[in-house]
Amino acid sequence: MPDPYEMPTDEELRTSGAQVTVGVLHPGEMGSAVGASAAEAGARVIWVSEGRSAATHERAEADGLHDVHWLNGLVNQSHIILSICPPHAAEEVAEAVTTLGYHRIYVDANAVSPATVRRMAARIEETGARFVDGGIIGGPPRKAGTTRLYLSGEYAPRVATALAGGPLEVCVLDAPVGAASALKMAYAAWTKGTSALLAAIEALAVHEDVLEPLLDEWRRGRSGLEERAEALGGAAAKAWRWVGEMEQIAASFEAAGLPGGFHQAAAEVFDRMTQFKDDRDAPGGPTLARTLLPADPPRD
Amino acid sequence: MPDPYEMPTDEELRTSGAQVTVGVLHPGEMGSAVGASAAEAGARVIWVSEGRSAATHERAEADGLHDVHWLNGLVNQSHIILSICPPHAAEEVAEAVTTLGYHRIYVDANAVSPATVRRMAARIEETGARFVDGGIIGGPPRKAGTTRLYLSGEYAPRVATALAGGPLEVCVLDAPVGAASALKMAYAAWTKGTSALLAAIEALAVHEDVLEPLLDEWRRGRSGLEERAEALGGAAAKAWRWVGEMEQIAASFEAAGLPGGFHQAAAEVFDRMTQFKDDRDAPGGPTLARTLLPADPPRD
Repeated sequence: MPDPYEMPTDEELRTSGAQVTVGVLHPGEMGSAVGASAAEAGARVIWVSEGRSAATHERAEADGLHDVHWLNGLVNQSHIILSICPPHAAEEVAEAVTTLGYHRIYVDANAVSPATVRRMAARIEETGARFVDGGIIGGPPRKAGTTRLYLSGEYAPRVATALAGGPLEVCVLDAPVGAASALKMAYAAWTKGTSALLAAIEALAVHEDVLEPLLDEWRRGRSGLEERAEALGGAAAKAWRWVGEMEQIAASFEAAGLPGGFHQAAAEVFDRMTQFKDDRDAPGGPTLARTLLPADPPRD
Repeated sequence: MPDPYEMPTDEELRTSGAQVTVGVLHPGEMGSAVGASAAEAGARVIWVSEGRSAATHERAEADGLHDVHWLNGLVNQSHIILSICPPHAAEEVAEAVTTLGYHRIYVDANAVSPATVRRMAARIEETGARFVDGGIIGGPPRKAGTTRLYLSGEYAPRVATALAGGPLEVCVLDAPVGAASALKMAYAAWTKGTSALLAAIEALAVHEDVLEPLLDEWRRGRSGLEERAEALGGAAAKAWRWVGEMEQIAASFEAAGLPGGFHQAAAEVFDRMTQFKDDRDAPGGPTLARTLLPADPPRD
Protein backbone atom coordinates (compact mmCIF):
# COMPACT_ATOMS: atom_id res chain seq x y z
CA MET A 1 0.00 0.00 0.00
CA PRO A 2 1.45 3.37 -0.94
CA ASP A 3 2.31 5.92 1.71
CA PRO A 4 -0.87 8.06 1.80
CA TYR A 5 1.22 11.18 2.30
CA GLU A 6 3.29 10.68 -0.82
CA MET A 7 2.01 12.29 -3.98
CA PRO A 8 0.13 9.91 -6.29
CA THR A 9 1.78 9.66 -9.72
CA ASP A 10 0.05 11.16 -12.76
CA GLU A 11 -0.54 7.57 -13.92
CA GLU A 12 -2.27 6.65 -10.66
CA LEU A 13 -4.37 9.78 -10.77
CA ARG A 14 -5.56 9.01 -14.27
CA THR A 15 -6.18 5.29 -13.85
CA SER A 16 -6.70 4.19 -10.26
CA GLY A 17 -9.00 6.75 -8.73
CA ALA A 18 -6.22 7.79 -6.35
CA GLN A 19 -7.01 11.14 -4.82
CA VAL A 20 -4.77 14.13 -4.34
CA THR A 21 -5.22 16.07 -1.15
CA VAL A 22 -5.11 19.81 -1.72
CA GLY A 23 -4.76 22.14 1.26
CA VAL A 24 -6.07 25.67 0.75
CA LEU A 25 -4.57 28.48 2.87
CA HIS A 26 -6.69 30.50 3.60
CA PRO A 27 -9.98 30.26 1.79
CA GLY A 28 -11.60 33.64 1.31
CA GLU A 29 -14.01 34.18 -1.57
CA MET A 30 -11.36 33.30 -4.13
CA GLY A 31 -9.71 30.44 -2.22
CA SER A 32 -12.99 28.78 -1.38
CA ALA A 33 -14.11 28.85 -5.02
CA VAL A 34 -10.74 27.52 -6.18
CA GLY A 35 -11.05 24.77 -3.57
CA ALA A 36 -14.55 23.90 -4.81
CA SER A 37 -13.20 23.72 -8.34
CA ALA A 38 -10.39 21.37 -7.24
CA ALA A 39 -12.95 19.20 -5.42
CA GLU A 40 -15.04 19.07 -8.57
CA ALA A 41 -11.86 17.99 -10.39
CA GLY A 42 -11.57 15.03 -8.03
CA ALA A 43 -9.27 16.24 -5.27
CA ARG A 44 -9.88 16.02 -1.57
CA VAL A 45 -9.68 19.63 -0.44
CA ILE A 46 -8.85 20.57 3.13
CA TRP A 47 -8.60 23.80 5.05
CA VAL A 48 -7.83 25.11 8.52
CA SER A 49 -10.59 26.77 10.52
CA GLU A 50 -8.46 27.97 13.41
CA GLY A 51 -8.82 31.73 13.75
CA ARG A 52 -11.16 32.09 10.76
CA SER A 53 -14.57 33.77 10.77
CA ALA A 54 -17.98 32.12 10.85
CA ALA A 55 -18.64 33.40 7.32
CA THR A 56 -15.47 31.71 6.04
CA HIS A 57 -16.54 28.50 7.82
CA GLU A 58 -19.96 28.52 6.19
CA ARG A 59 -18.56 29.19 2.74
CA ALA A 60 -15.91 26.46 3.07
CA GLU A 61 -18.55 23.95 4.21
CA ALA A 62 -20.80 24.89 1.31
CA ASP A 63 -17.87 24.45 -1.08
CA GLY A 64 -17.17 20.91 0.17
CA LEU A 65 -13.86 21.76 1.86
CA HIS A 66 -12.91 19.50 4.79
CA ASP A 67 -11.88 21.26 7.95
CA VAL A 68 -8.70 19.80 9.48
CA HIS A 69 -8.79 22.47 12.22
CA TRP A 70 -5.04 23.00 12.69
CA LEU A 71 -2.30 24.04 10.30
CA ASN A 72 -0.21 21.02 11.29
CA GLY A 73 -2.95 18.69 10.06
CA LEU A 74 -3.05 20.45 6.71
CA VAL A 75 0.74 20.34 6.39
CA ASN A 76 0.81 16.62 7.16
CA GLN A 77 -2.03 15.62 4.85
CA SER A 78 -1.63 17.88 1.79
CA HIS A 79 0.03 16.71 -1.41
CA ILE A 80 -0.34 20.22 -2.68
CA ILE A 81 -0.73 23.35 -0.62
CA LEU A 82 -2.36 26.28 -2.41
CA SER A 83 -1.70 29.63 -0.78
CA ILE A 84 -4.46 32.08 -1.69
CA CYS A 85 -4.45 35.08 0.59
CA PRO A 86 -3.99 38.87 0.53
CA PRO A 87 -0.55 39.65 -0.92
CA HIS A 88 0.80 41.18 2.27
CA ALA A 89 0.24 37.84 4.07
CA ALA A 90 1.83 35.57 1.44
CA GLU A 91 5.31 35.31 2.95
CA GLU A 92 3.95 34.76 6.45
CA VAL A 93 1.84 31.82 5.24
CA ALA A 94 4.83 30.27 3.44
CA GLU A 95 6.96 30.72 6.54
CA ALA A 96 4.40 29.03 8.82
CA VAL A 97 4.24 26.01 6.51
CA THR A 98 8.02 25.79 6.23
CA THR A 99 8.40 25.93 9.99
CA LEU A 100 6.18 22.84 10.26
CA GLY A 101 8.48 20.92 7.89
CA TYR A 102 6.20 20.69 4.84
CA HIS A 103 7.96 18.73 2.09
CA ARG A 104 5.58 18.29 -0.85
CA ILE A 105 4.33 20.82 -3.43
CA TYR A 106 3.63 24.39 -2.40
CA VAL A 107 1.81 26.72 -4.81
CA ASP A 108 1.83 30.43 -4.11
CA ALA A 109 -1.11 31.75 -6.14
CA ASN A 110 -1.00 35.26 -4.74
CA ALA A 111 -0.62 38.63 -6.40
CA VAL A 112 3.03 39.14 -5.51
CA SER A 113 6.09 40.23 -7.45
CA PRO A 114 8.47 37.78 -9.12
CA ALA A 115 11.14 38.79 -6.59
CA THR A 116 8.82 38.00 -3.66
CA VAL A 117 8.00 34.66 -5.25
CA ARG A 118 11.64 33.76 -5.80
CA ARG A 119 12.38 34.60 -2.17
CA MET A 120 9.50 32.37 -1.02
CA ALA A 121 10.63 29.58 -3.34
CA ALA A 122 14.11 29.61 -1.82
CA ARG A 123 12.65 29.43 1.68
CA ILE A 124 10.15 26.66 0.84
CA GLU A 125 12.78 24.56 -0.91
CA GLU A 126 15.04 24.64 2.17
CA THR A 127 12.88 21.91 3.68
CA GLY A 128 12.97 19.80 0.51
CA ALA A 129 9.51 20.92 -0.64
CA ARG A 130 8.78 21.91 -4.25
CA PHE A 131 7.66 25.40 -5.11
CA VAL A 132 5.25 26.25 -7.93
CA ASP A 133 4.46 29.83 -8.89
CA GLY A 134 0.82 30.66 -9.51
CA GLY A 135 -1.16 33.67 -10.66
CA ILE A 136 -4.96 33.88 -10.81
CA ILE A 137 -6.60 36.04 -13.45
CA GLY A 138 -10.36 36.53 -13.15
CA GLY A 139 -12.83 36.40 -10.28
CA PRO A 140 -13.74 33.45 -8.04
CA PRO A 141 -14.23 30.54 -10.51
CA ARG A 142 -17.89 29.71 -10.00
CA LYS A 143 -18.42 28.80 -13.64
CA ALA A 144 -16.17 27.74 -16.50
CA GLY A 145 -14.51 30.39 -18.68
CA THR A 146 -14.19 33.13 -16.10
CA THR A 147 -10.87 32.43 -14.41
CA ARG A 148 -7.41 31.09 -15.18
CA LEU A 149 -4.79 29.83 -12.76
CA TYR A 150 -1.41 30.26 -14.44
CA LEU A 151 1.38 28.06 -13.14
CA SER A 152 5.13 28.13 -13.75
CA GLY A 153 8.13 26.20 -12.46
CA GLU A 154 9.29 22.62 -12.85
CA TYR A 155 6.38 21.02 -10.96
CA ALA A 156 3.66 23.12 -12.58
CA PRO A 157 2.44 20.24 -14.81
CA ARG A 158 1.90 17.98 -11.79
CA VAL A 159 -0.23 20.62 -10.12
CA ALA A 160 -2.16 21.19 -13.32
CA THR A 161 -2.97 17.47 -13.58
CA ALA A 162 -4.31 17.48 -10.02
CA LEU A 163 -6.39 20.65 -10.33
CA ALA A 164 -7.73 20.56 -13.89
CA GLY A 165 -11.34 19.50 -14.43
CA GLY A 166 -13.36 22.07 -12.49
CA PRO A 167 -14.53 25.51 -13.59
CA LEU A 168 -11.06 26.95 -12.88
CA GLU A 169 -8.97 26.77 -16.04
CA VAL A 170 -5.40 25.74 -15.26
CA CYS A 171 -2.70 27.00 -17.66
CA VAL A 172 0.92 25.88 -17.46
CA LEU A 173 3.54 28.38 -18.62
CA ASP A 174 6.66 26.67 -19.88
CA ALA A 175 8.75 29.04 -17.78
CA PRO A 176 10.49 29.16 -14.41
CA VAL A 177 9.13 30.27 -11.06
CA GLY A 178 8.40 34.00 -11.34
CA ALA A 179 6.65 33.92 -14.70
CA ALA A 180 3.13 33.22 -13.42
CA SER A 181 3.44 36.03 -10.90
CA ALA A 182 4.93 38.40 -13.49
CA LEU A 183 1.94 37.72 -15.74
CA LYS A 184 -0.45 38.45 -12.90
CA MET A 185 1.42 41.67 -12.05
CA ALA A 186 1.42 42.87 -15.65
CA TYR A 187 -2.27 42.06 -16.08
CA ALA A 188 -3.40 43.70 -12.85
CA ALA A 189 -1.09 46.66 -13.48
CA TRP A 190 -3.62 47.74 -16.10
CA THR A 191 -6.95 46.63 -14.63
CA LYS A 192 -6.42 47.85 -11.08
CA GLY A 193 -3.91 50.60 -11.90
CA THR A 194 -6.39 52.29 -14.23
CA SER A 195 -9.20 51.94 -11.65
CA ALA A 196 -7.11 53.85 -9.13
CA LEU A 197 -6.14 56.43 -11.76
CA LEU A 198 -9.75 56.93 -12.80
CA ALA A 199 -10.88 57.49 -9.21
CA ALA A 200 -8.06 59.99 -8.66
CA ILE A 201 -8.92 61.87 -11.87
CA GLU A 202 -12.53 62.26 -10.78
CA ALA A 203 -11.24 63.50 -7.43
CA LEU A 204 -9.07 66.10 -9.20
CA ALA A 205 -12.03 67.21 -11.30
CA VAL A 206 -14.22 67.53 -8.18
CA HIS A 207 -11.49 69.50 -6.40
CA GLU A 208 -11.11 71.87 -9.36
CA ASP A 209 -14.86 72.06 -9.97
CA VAL A 210 -14.63 70.81 -13.57
CA LEU A 211 -16.39 67.47 -13.16
CA GLU A 212 -19.31 68.32 -15.44
CA PRO A 213 -17.25 69.41 -18.47
CA LEU A 214 -14.95 66.41 -17.91
CA LEU A 215 -17.92 64.02 -17.94
CA ASP A 216 -19.18 65.80 -21.07
CA GLU A 217 -15.83 65.18 -22.77
CA TRP A 218 -15.87 61.53 -21.72
CA ARG A 219 -19.41 61.15 -23.02
CA ARG A 220 -18.56 62.86 -26.28
CA GLY A 221 -15.69 60.40 -26.87
CA ARG A 222 -17.88 57.45 -25.86
CA SER A 223 -15.07 56.48 -23.56
CA GLY A 224 -17.27 54.61 -21.08
CA LEU A 225 -15.21 56.23 -18.32
CA GLU A 226 -18.18 57.80 -16.55
CA GLU A 227 -19.86 54.39 -16.28
CA ARG A 228 -16.62 52.75 -15.22
CA ALA A 229 -16.11 55.38 -12.52
CA GLU A 230 -19.67 54.86 -11.29
CA ALA A 231 -18.89 51.14 -10.87
CA LEU A 232 -15.81 51.77 -8.71
CA GLY A 233 -17.76 51.02 -5.52
CA GLY A 234 -16.94 47.36 -6.13
CA ALA A 235 -13.25 48.26 -6.23
CA ALA A 236 -13.58 50.33 -3.08
CA ALA A 237 -14.90 47.30 -1.18
CA LYS A 238 -11.83 45.27 -2.20
CA ALA A 239 -9.31 48.08 -2.05
CA TRP A 240 -7.95 46.99 1.35
CA ARG A 241 -6.51 43.90 -0.36
CA TRP A 242 -5.24 45.83 -3.35
CA VAL A 243 -2.93 48.15 -1.46
CA GLY A 244 -0.42 45.32 -1.04
CA GLU A 245 -0.96 44.17 -4.62
CA MET A 246 -0.16 47.65 -5.96
CA GLU A 247 3.00 47.73 -3.84
CA GLN A 248 4.02 44.38 -5.33
CA ILE A 249 3.38 45.69 -8.84
CA ALA A 250 5.42 48.83 -8.12
CA ALA A 251 8.26 46.60 -6.91
CA SER A 252 7.97 44.49 -10.07
CA PHE A 253 8.28 47.60 -12.25
CA GLU A 254 11.27 48.85 -10.30
CA ALA A 255 13.05 45.49 -10.45
CA ALA A 256 12.76 45.75 -14.26
CA GLY A 257 14.19 49.28 -14.19
CA LEU A 258 10.77 50.83 -14.88
CA PRO A 259 9.15 53.58 -12.78
CA GLY A 260 7.16 52.29 -9.82
CA GLY A 261 5.23 55.52 -9.35
CA PHE A 262 2.05 54.50 -11.19
CA HIS A 263 1.32 51.77 -8.66
CA GLN A 264 2.72 53.51 -5.60
CA ALA A 265 0.13 56.16 -6.40
CA ALA A 266 -2.51 53.46 -6.96
CA ALA A 267 -1.63 51.95 -3.56
CA GLU A 268 -2.18 55.35 -1.97
CA VAL A 269 -5.54 55.77 -3.70
CA PHE A 270 -6.71 52.32 -2.60
CA ASP A 271 -5.41 52.97 0.90
CA ARG A 272 -7.79 55.94 1.09
CA MET A 273 -10.65 53.57 0.19
CA THR A 274 -10.06 51.12 3.03
CA GLN A 275 -12.92 52.70 4.98
CA PHE A 276 -15.20 50.84 2.52
CA LYS A 277 -13.72 47.40 3.30
CA ASP A 278 -16.16 44.67 2.24
CA ASP A 279 -18.95 47.27 2.01
CA ARG A 280 -21.36 46.09 -0.66
CA ASP A 281 -22.92 49.53 -0.74
CA ALA A 282 -19.65 51.43 -1.24
CA PRO A 283 -20.25 54.38 -3.57
CA GLY A 284 -18.56 54.93 -6.91
CA GLY A 285 -18.23 57.97 -9.17
CA PRO A 286 -18.02 61.48 -7.73
CA THR A 287 -19.22 60.35 -4.29
CA LEU A 288 -16.27 57.98 -3.97
CA ALA A 289 -13.96 60.55 -5.56
CA ARG A 290 -14.86 63.14 -2.93
CA THR A 291 -13.73 60.78 -0.16
CA LEU A 292 -10.26 60.62 -1.70
CA LEU A 293 -9.61 64.32 -1.22
CA PRO A 294 -7.91 65.36 2.00
CA ALA A 295 -9.85 67.76 4.20
CA ASP A 296 -6.99 70.26 3.90
CA PRO A 297 -5.34 70.06 0.49
CA PRO A 298 -1.90 71.64 0.18
CA ARG A 299 -1.80 75.22 -1.11
CA ASP A 300 -0.35 76.15 -4.50
CA MET B 1 -11.46 106.54 -36.33
CA PRO B 2 -10.94 104.01 -33.56
CA ASP B 3 -7.45 103.26 -32.30
CA PRO B 4 -6.53 100.22 -34.38
CA TYR B 5 -4.74 98.70 -31.41
CA GLU B 6 -7.77 98.81 -29.14
CA MET B 7 -9.97 95.74 -29.10
CA PRO B 8 -13.10 96.04 -31.26
CA THR B 9 -16.28 95.64 -29.23
CA ASP B 10 -18.44 92.56 -29.67
CA GLU B 11 -20.98 94.82 -31.35
CA GLU B 12 -18.41 96.09 -33.86
CA LEU B 13 -17.24 92.56 -34.55
CA ARG B 14 -20.75 91.37 -35.29
CA THR B 15 -21.91 94.33 -37.34
CA SER B 16 -19.12 96.38 -38.89
CA GLY B 17 -16.70 93.87 -40.31
CA ALA B 18 -14.09 95.09 -37.82
CA GLN B 19 -11.32 92.58 -37.58
CA VAL B 20 -9.61 91.26 -34.49
CA THR B 21 -5.90 90.64 -34.75
CA VAL B 22 -4.88 87.37 -33.11
CA GLY B 23 -1.19 86.71 -32.46
CA VAL B 24 -0.21 83.05 -32.22
CA LEU B 25 2.88 82.15 -30.18
CA HIS B 26 4.35 79.86 -31.47
CA PRO B 27 2.56 78.00 -34.22
CA GLY B 28 3.54 74.33 -34.32
CA GLU B 29 1.11 71.82 -35.76
CA MET B 30 -1.55 72.71 -33.22
CA GLY B 31 -0.98 76.46 -33.16
CA SER B 32 -0.94 76.78 -36.92
CA ALA B 33 -4.24 74.89 -37.24
CA VAL B 34 -5.81 76.98 -34.47
CA GLY B 35 -4.57 80.09 -36.29
CA ALA B 36 -6.10 78.88 -39.54
CA SER B 37 -9.39 78.30 -37.74
CA ALA B 38 -9.30 81.82 -36.30
CA ALA B 39 -8.59 83.21 -39.77
CA GLU B 40 -11.54 81.27 -41.14
CA ALA B 41 -13.60 82.81 -38.34
CA GLY B 42 -12.67 86.29 -39.63
CA ALA B 43 -9.63 87.27 -37.60
CA ARG B 44 -6.35 88.57 -38.90
CA VAL B 45 -3.84 86.08 -37.57
CA ILE B 46 -0.18 86.98 -37.12
CA TRP B 47 2.90 85.12 -36.00
CA VAL B 48 6.61 85.66 -35.45
CA SER B 49 9.08 83.87 -37.69
CA GLU B 50 12.23 84.84 -35.83
CA GLY B 51 14.10 81.70 -34.79
CA ARG B 52 11.51 79.31 -36.24
CA SER B 53 12.16 76.49 -38.69
CA ALA B 54 11.50 76.46 -42.43
CA ALA B 55 8.82 73.80 -41.89
CA THR B 56 7.00 76.07 -39.45
CA HIS B 57 7.27 78.93 -41.93
CA GLU B 58 5.76 76.88 -44.75
CA ARG B 59 2.92 75.64 -42.57
CA ALA B 60 2.12 79.13 -41.26
CA GLU B 61 2.07 80.51 -44.82
CA ALA B 62 -0.18 77.71 -45.97
CA ASP B 63 -2.51 78.42 -43.05
CA GLY B 64 -2.82 82.10 -43.97
CA LEU B 65 -0.91 83.42 -40.96
CA HIS B 66 0.84 86.77 -41.50
CA ASP B 67 4.45 86.93 -40.48
CA VAL B 68 5.27 90.04 -38.42
CA HIS B 69 8.87 88.82 -38.00
CA TRP B 70 9.57 90.10 -34.47
CA LEU B 71 7.85 89.53 -31.17
CA ASN B 72 7.53 93.27 -30.60
CA GLY B 73 5.41 93.59 -33.74
CA LEU B 74 3.08 90.85 -32.55
CA VAL B 75 2.79 92.40 -29.09
CA ASN B 76 1.96 95.82 -30.58
CA GLN B 77 -0.60 94.58 -33.11
CA SER B 78 -2.45 91.75 -31.34
CA HIS B 79 -5.83 92.25 -29.70
CA ILE B 80 -5.54 88.71 -28.46
CA ILE B 81 -2.37 86.70 -28.01
CA LEU B 82 -2.80 82.95 -28.04
CA SER B 83 0.08 81.05 -26.46
CA ILE B 84 0.21 77.52 -27.87
CA CYS B 85 3.55 75.91 -27.15
CA PRO B 86 5.07 72.96 -25.28
CA PRO B 87 4.11 73.22 -21.59
CA HIS B 88 7.67 73.70 -20.37
CA ALA B 89 7.91 76.91 -22.48
CA ALA B 90 4.59 78.46 -21.41
CA GLU B 91 5.89 80.70 -18.64
CA GLU B 92 8.83 81.88 -20.71
CA VAL B 93 6.49 82.97 -23.52
CA ALA B 94 4.25 84.83 -21.07
CA GLU B 95 7.28 86.51 -19.53
CA ALA B 96 8.62 87.67 -22.90
CA VAL B 97 5.27 89.25 -23.77
CA THR B 98 4.98 90.92 -20.38
CA THR B 99 8.46 92.36 -20.68
CA LEU B 100 7.39 94.07 -23.92
CA GLY B 101 4.48 95.74 -22.12
CA TYR B 102 1.58 93.84 -23.71
CA HIS B 103 -1.72 95.19 -22.37
CA ARG B 104 -4.60 93.46 -24.17
CA ILE B 105 -5.93 89.88 -23.85
CA TYR B 106 -3.51 87.01 -23.32
CA VAL B 107 -4.75 83.44 -23.64
CA ASP B 108 -2.58 80.63 -22.35
CA ALA B 109 -3.92 77.55 -24.13
CA ASN B 110 -1.18 75.22 -22.97
CA ALA B 111 -1.29 71.98 -21.03
CA VAL B 112 -0.24 73.42 -17.70
CA SER B 113 -1.50 73.08 -14.15
CA PRO B 114 -4.03 75.48 -12.62
CA ALA B 115 -1.27 76.71 -10.28
CA THR B 116 1.05 77.51 -13.21
CA VAL B 117 -1.81 79.32 -14.93
CA ARG B 118 -2.64 81.37 -11.87
CA ARG B 119 1.02 82.35 -11.55
CA MET B 120 1.12 83.41 -15.22
CA ALA B 121 -2.15 85.31 -14.81
CA ALA B 122 -0.71 87.33 -11.93
CA ARG B 123 2.39 88.17 -13.96
CA ILE B 124 0.45 89.09 -17.12
CA GLU B 125 -1.99 91.28 -15.19
CA GLU B 126 0.87 93.29 -13.68
CA THR B 127 1.10 95.21 -16.97
CA GLY B 128 -2.65 95.79 -17.12
CA ALA B 129 -3.27 93.01 -19.62
CA ARG B 130 -6.16 90.54 -19.25
CA PHE B 131 -5.51 86.86 -18.78
CA VAL B 132 -7.75 84.12 -20.13
CA ASP B 133 -7.15 80.46 -19.30
CA GLY B 134 -7.41 78.01 -22.19
CA GLY B 135 -7.22 74.25 -22.63
CA ILE B 136 -7.32 72.43 -25.96
CA ILE B 137 -8.84 68.97 -26.16
CA GLY B 138 -8.39 67.09 -29.42
CA GLY B 139 -5.87 67.24 -32.26
CA PRO B 140 -5.08 70.14 -34.60
CA PRO B 141 -8.54 71.41 -35.70
CA ARG B 142 -8.45 70.74 -39.44
CA LYS B 143 -12.13 69.92 -39.59
CA ALA B 144 -15.15 70.65 -37.40
CA GLY B 145 -16.03 68.36 -34.52
CA THR B 146 -12.53 67.20 -33.65
CA THR B 147 -11.26 69.81 -31.22
CA ARG B 148 -12.48 72.07 -28.45
CA LEU B 149 -10.77 75.12 -26.99
CA TYR B 150 -12.08 75.56 -23.45
CA LEU B 151 -11.79 79.04 -21.98
CA SER B 152 -12.26 80.34 -18.45
CA GLY B 153 -11.85 83.67 -16.72
CA GLU B 154 -13.68 86.97 -16.93
CA TYR B 155 -12.67 87.78 -20.51
CA ALA B 156 -13.30 84.29 -21.89
CA PRO B 157 -16.55 85.31 -23.68
CA ARG B 158 -14.73 88.10 -25.59
CA VAL B 159 -12.12 85.63 -26.82
CA ALA B 160 -14.83 83.16 -27.77
CA THR B 161 -16.61 85.81 -29.86
CA ALA B 162 -13.39 86.55 -31.73
CA LEU B 163 -12.39 82.93 -32.37
CA ALA B 164 -15.67 81.11 -32.95
CA GLY B 165 -16.63 80.30 -36.52
CA GLY B 166 -13.83 78.04 -37.75
CA PRO B 167 -13.43 74.29 -37.32
CA LEU B 168 -12.15 74.83 -33.76
CA GLU B 169 -15.07 74.68 -31.35
CA VAL B 170 -14.75 77.33 -28.63
CA CYS B 171 -16.36 76.50 -25.27
CA VAL B 172 -16.62 79.03 -22.44
CA LEU B 173 -16.62 77.62 -18.91
CA ASP B 174 -18.43 79.89 -16.48
CA ALA B 175 -15.52 79.59 -14.09
CA PRO B 176 -12.39 81.49 -13.07
CA VAL B 177 -8.89 81.26 -14.50
CA GLY B 178 -7.59 77.75 -13.71
CA ALA B 179 -10.72 75.84 -14.70
CA ALA B 180 -9.88 75.40 -18.40
CA SER B 181 -6.42 74.14 -17.50
CA ALA B 182 -7.76 71.85 -14.80
CA LEU B 183 -10.13 70.32 -17.34
CA LYS B 184 -7.27 69.76 -19.76
CA MET B 185 -5.13 68.22 -16.99
CA ALA B 186 -7.91 65.87 -15.88
CA TYR B 187 -8.69 64.84 -19.45
CA ALA B 188 -5.06 64.21 -20.45
CA ALA B 189 -4.38 62.50 -17.12
CA TRP B 190 -6.34 59.58 -18.52
CA THR B 191 -5.50 59.63 -22.24
CA LYS B 192 -1.76 60.18 -21.96
CA GLY B 193 -1.33 58.66 -18.50
CA THR B 194 -2.76 55.35 -19.68
CA SER B 195 -0.60 55.44 -22.84
CA ALA B 196 2.51 55.68 -20.69
CA LEU B 197 1.22 52.96 -18.36
CA LEU B 198 0.45 50.65 -21.24
CA ALA B 199 3.92 51.06 -22.73
CA ALA B 200 5.50 50.38 -19.33
CA ILE B 201 3.37 47.26 -18.82
CA GLU B 202 4.49 45.84 -22.14
CA ALA B 203 8.06 46.61 -21.13
CA LEU B 204 7.57 44.71 -17.86
CA ALA B 205 6.11 41.76 -19.75
CA VAL B 206 9.04 41.78 -22.19
CA HIS B 207 11.51 41.95 -19.30
CA GLU B 208 9.82 39.02 -17.53
CA ASP B 209 9.32 37.08 -20.76
CA VAL B 210 5.53 36.85 -20.35
CA LEU B 211 4.49 39.03 -23.28
CA GLU B 212 2.73 36.25 -25.19
CA PRO B 213 0.46 35.08 -22.35
CA LEU B 214 -0.27 38.71 -21.48
CA LEU B 215 -1.32 39.44 -25.07
CA ASP B 216 -3.44 36.26 -24.97
CA GLU B 217 -5.20 37.52 -21.85
CA TRP B 218 -5.79 40.93 -23.45
CA ARG B 219 -7.18 39.26 -26.58
CA ARG B 220 -9.40 36.98 -24.54
CA GLY B 221 -10.92 39.98 -22.77
CA ARG B 222 -11.29 41.89 -26.09
CA SER B 223 -9.57 44.74 -24.30
CA GLY B 224 -8.13 46.29 -27.44
CA LEU B 225 -4.92 46.87 -25.47
CA GLU B 226 -2.69 44.99 -27.89
CA GLU B 227 -3.88 47.21 -30.76
CA ARG B 228 -3.59 50.31 -28.62
CA ALA B 229 -0.02 49.38 -27.68
CA GLU B 230 0.85 48.79 -31.33
CA ALA B 231 -0.34 52.33 -32.10
CA LEU B 232 1.92 53.92 -29.46
CA GLY B 233 4.49 54.91 -32.10
CA GLY B 234 2.40 58.05 -32.64
CA ALA B 235 2.73 58.81 -28.92
CA ALA B 236 6.46 58.15 -29.01
CA ALA B 237 6.92 60.80 -31.70
CA LYS B 238 5.16 63.38 -29.49
CA ALA B 239 6.51 62.17 -26.16
CA TRP B 240 9.16 64.92 -25.98
CA ARG B 241 6.31 67.43 -25.51
CA TRP B 242 4.42 65.25 -23.08
CA VAL B 243 7.14 65.02 -20.44
CA GLY B 244 6.37 68.56 -19.31
CA GLU B 245 2.63 67.95 -19.57
CA MET B 246 2.87 64.90 -17.30
CA GLU B 247 4.86 66.95 -14.78
CA GLN B 248 2.12 69.59 -14.84
CA ILE B 249 -0.53 66.92 -14.28
CA ALA B 250 1.47 65.44 -11.39
CA ALA B 251 1.67 68.93 -9.86
CA SER B 252 -2.09 69.37 -10.35
CA PHE B 253 -2.78 66.12 -8.48
CA GLU B 254 -0.44 67.06 -5.66
CA ALA B 255 -1.96 70.53 -5.30
CA ALA B 256 -5.30 68.77 -4.75
CA GLY B 257 -3.74 66.47 -2.15
CA LEU B 258 -3.78 63.50 -4.53
CA PRO B 259 -0.74 61.33 -5.35
CA GLY B 260 1.39 62.68 -8.21
CA GLY B 261 3.15 59.37 -8.82
CA PHE B 262 1.00 58.21 -11.75
CA HIS B 263 2.17 61.10 -13.89
CA GLN B 264 5.69 61.40 -12.53
CA ALA B 265 6.04 57.82 -13.75
CA ALA B 266 4.37 58.74 -17.05
CA ALA B 267 6.84 61.63 -17.45
CA GLU B 268 9.70 59.19 -16.97
CA VAL B 269 8.28 56.78 -19.55
CA PHE B 270 7.81 59.58 -22.11
CA ASP B 271 11.28 60.89 -21.33
CA ARG B 272 12.66 57.51 -22.41
CA MET B 273 10.82 57.93 -25.73
CA THR B 274 12.38 61.27 -26.65
CA GLN B 275 14.79 59.50 -29.01
CA PHE B 276 11.74 59.15 -31.31
CA LYS B 277 11.04 62.91 -31.42
CA ASP B 278 8.91 63.74 -34.48
CA ASP B 279 9.77 60.34 -35.98
CA ARG B 280 6.82 59.32 -38.13
CA ASP B 281 8.14 55.77 -38.23
CA ALA B 282 8.54 55.40 -34.47
CA PRO B 283 7.66 51.82 -33.46
CA GLY B 284 4.86 50.83 -31.11
CA GLY B 285 4.09 47.61 -29.25
CA PRO B 286 6.86 45.35 -27.98
CA THR B 287 9.51 47.07 -30.14
CA LEU B 288 8.83 50.38 -28.41
CA ALA B 289 8.49 48.62 -25.05
CA ARG B 290 11.95 47.10 -25.38
CA THR B 291 13.50 50.57 -25.76
CA LEU B 292 12.06 51.58 -22.37
CA LEU B 293 14.05 48.95 -20.48
CA PRO B 294 17.43 50.04 -19.14
CA ALA B 295 20.42 48.07 -20.41
CA ASP B 296 21.20 47.05 -16.83
CA PRO B 297 18.03 46.67 -14.78
CA PRO B 298 18.46 46.68 -11.01
CA ARG B 299 18.79 43.28 -9.35
CA ASP B 300 16.11 41.80 -7.06
